[in-house]
Amino acid sequence: MREVVILGTGNVAFHLFKAFSEAENIQVIQVYNHRQESLKDFSKFTDTTTSINELKPAHFYILALKDDIIPEIAEQLKNYRGIILHTSGAVGLNALEGVTNFGVFYPLQTFSKNKYVDFAKIPVCIEANSSENLERISALASGISKDVREIDSEQRKALHVAAVFVNNFSNHLYSIGAEICAENKIEFSILKPLIAETAIKIESLKPQEAQTGPALRNDQKTIETHLEFLNKKNKDIYSLLTHSIQNLHGKKL
Amino acid sequence: MREVVILGTGNVAFHLFKAFSEAENIQVIQVYNHRQESLKDFSKFTDTTTSINELKPAHFYILALKDDIIPEIAEQLKNYRGIILHTSGAVGLNALEGVTNFGVFYPLQTFSKNKYVDFAKIPVCIEANSSENLERISALASGISKDVREIDSEQRKALHVAAVFVNNFSNHLYSIGAEICAENKIEFSILKPLIAETAIKIESLKPQEAQTGPALRNDQKTIETHLEFLNKKNKDIYSLLTHSIQNLHGKKL
Repeated sequence: MREVVILGTGNVAFHLFKAFSEAENIQVIQVYNHRQESLKDFSKFTDTTTSINELKPAHFYILALKDDIIPEIAEQLKNYRGIILHTSGAVGLNALEGVTNFGVFYPLQTFSKNKYVDFAKIPVCIEANSSENLERISALASGISKDVREIDSEQRKALHVAAVFVNNFSNHLYSIGAEICAENKIEFSILKPLIAETAIKIESLKPQEAQTGPALRNDQKTIETHLEFLNKKNKDIYSLLTHSIQNLHGKKL
Repeated sequence: MREVVILGTGNVAFHLFKAFSEAENIQVIQVYNHRQESLKDFSKFTDTTTSINELKPAHFYILALKDDIIPEIAEQLKNYRGIILHTSGAVGLNALEGVTNFGVFYPLQTFSKNKYVDFAKIPVCIEANSSENLERISALASGISKDVREIDSEQRKALHVAAVFVNNFSNHLYSIGAEICAENKIEFSILKPLIAETAIKIESLKPQEAQTGPALRNDQKTIETHLEFLNKKNKDIYSLLTHSIQNLHGKKL
């Protein structure tokens, strides 16, 4: 049985807790948070603590915490023998260097508390301070995901940026779509099949092959009509992305 | 039996032909294109012609053509009694005003020739020059889609702009994600579950509620690290979309 202590109670902690609890041979033996209030969803299922000095002996300590407190929490765990892991896309492996055994366990997905995700399909990016620890982390990750990949800190940083584009920024474009619908008394639901198909399409086509629209066709008449229609803020986004599409496809297609 | 003539052989024509052919009580009796070559995929299944003067009598003539030739083709159909429909998001109903019976049949979806789509789930936006014609167009659309909506020309123009944001521009963000992966020797496939989840999430959450990431958290340290990492072109996009997220959520949340 692999024993895990989770530090943190946010969305990543919540979904990891759930996935580990459902896995064979993995047990979350404790959850830590400095606020008692945040532990109440977990205390029904496992031991909890608000004291960093009362963590149990475990094989893994998973720091699902805000980026900037990772080094300071790791510092307080330096006498533990278990593997200390952080779950951040933006923090290097070296943020944990004070401890004996350490690594990274970065699930590349967007998590919301009330939205179920199938952890088996989530890529888990792992990294470690030694090949032995990498193997142990790999075994842990394979217990909950079918897609475990060794990704170094530089690559993970690149992935984190890429994730902002495909997730945060795409979602913001959906918000702009919703805004345009609301202003014109159209139900946003009308755009949902298009949004779904846009995402599904890249399962079978490369994004560059899937590109369509006035920018790609260099359909100036439509582009001008659209720009006239838009407010200043969205006009700037429309122009910049239109030019970016034309640059990419002018150069590479 | 509703008889349909399709003018055009592009992606919209191809998918409409397929959907009508599978529908009960609808028959595509002819496909027109000015180039013989483009008709060869259709001639196995129905009558085809390269002459605009040899169109058969039909209930509906569907102009699945480039936006700028719609008025000139419509002009040539002014002696026909069937309902002349265009399928464009960007062209007003009035582009067809020379003919007797006319309307719009705009399927709001992205079509690629080799990518199957379930037409039943595609919203079809309809508009007509009379309430009788609207009913007839509605009956035709209901034969292939479960989601038929009356949308006027102004709303359709708004929808077309919104579609550029959620489809063309989102897809371009996927291309940027793919580019960043390639530059860092990471397989693009690692981003696919995130892209899928981003799109699926708005089935249950409004896009504004689903927003996450450094821009929303105003996590300046991560934003700066990301900006340093990016090339000039992508840095501009990152900055503009980050500010846009902060504007939207500063104002409305």
